[in-house]
Amino acid sequence: MKALVYVGLKPGVLDPQGRTISRSLNDLGFDEVTGAFQGKVIELNLKNSDEPREAIQARVEQMCEKLLANTVIENYRIELKD
Amino acid sequence: MKALVYVGLKPGVLDPQGRTISRSLNDLGFDEVTGAFQGKVIELNLKNSDEPREAIQARVEQMCEKLLANTVIENYRIELKD
Repeated sequence: MKALVYVGLKPGVLDPQGRTISRSLNDLGFDEVTGAFQGKVIELNLKNSDEPREAIQARVEQMCEKLLANTVIENYRIELKD
Repeated sequence: MKALVYVGLKPGVLDPQGRTISRSLNDLGFDEVTGAFQGKVIELNLKNSDEPREAIQARVEQMCEKLLANTVIENYRIELKD
């Protein structure tokens, strides 16, 4: 089983990386770009288990809270895949 | 319109970041994690245009080739959203 974790900055948090991307694309002639935000995706391979999906989801949430996301400034979203 | 660009390492490319995540999760007691890979997501805001979807997709592909991805070691995937 796989878990995809999307981590991105909370709205309102300064995103210099996104602004750099946006400005660089404009400089390269891509004028249609009006904004950019960069986040990360973490793909986790998980051992197959008989636990219910809710329990697995809860474990991955713990991983986010403890390690994968800085919840002061970042949001996360989890997607489980068989 | 929005474009989501997912950029990740090609298979076979050494991923020290992913290995660190995987090992750290194991150390924290999450034994079910057998592997981890980290990639990035770039969300682009695009001006609304009358161009066909294929043309917009082609432009975003150019952005990836020129700036967003290092195609020697990275793959990318584009998703357009209205």
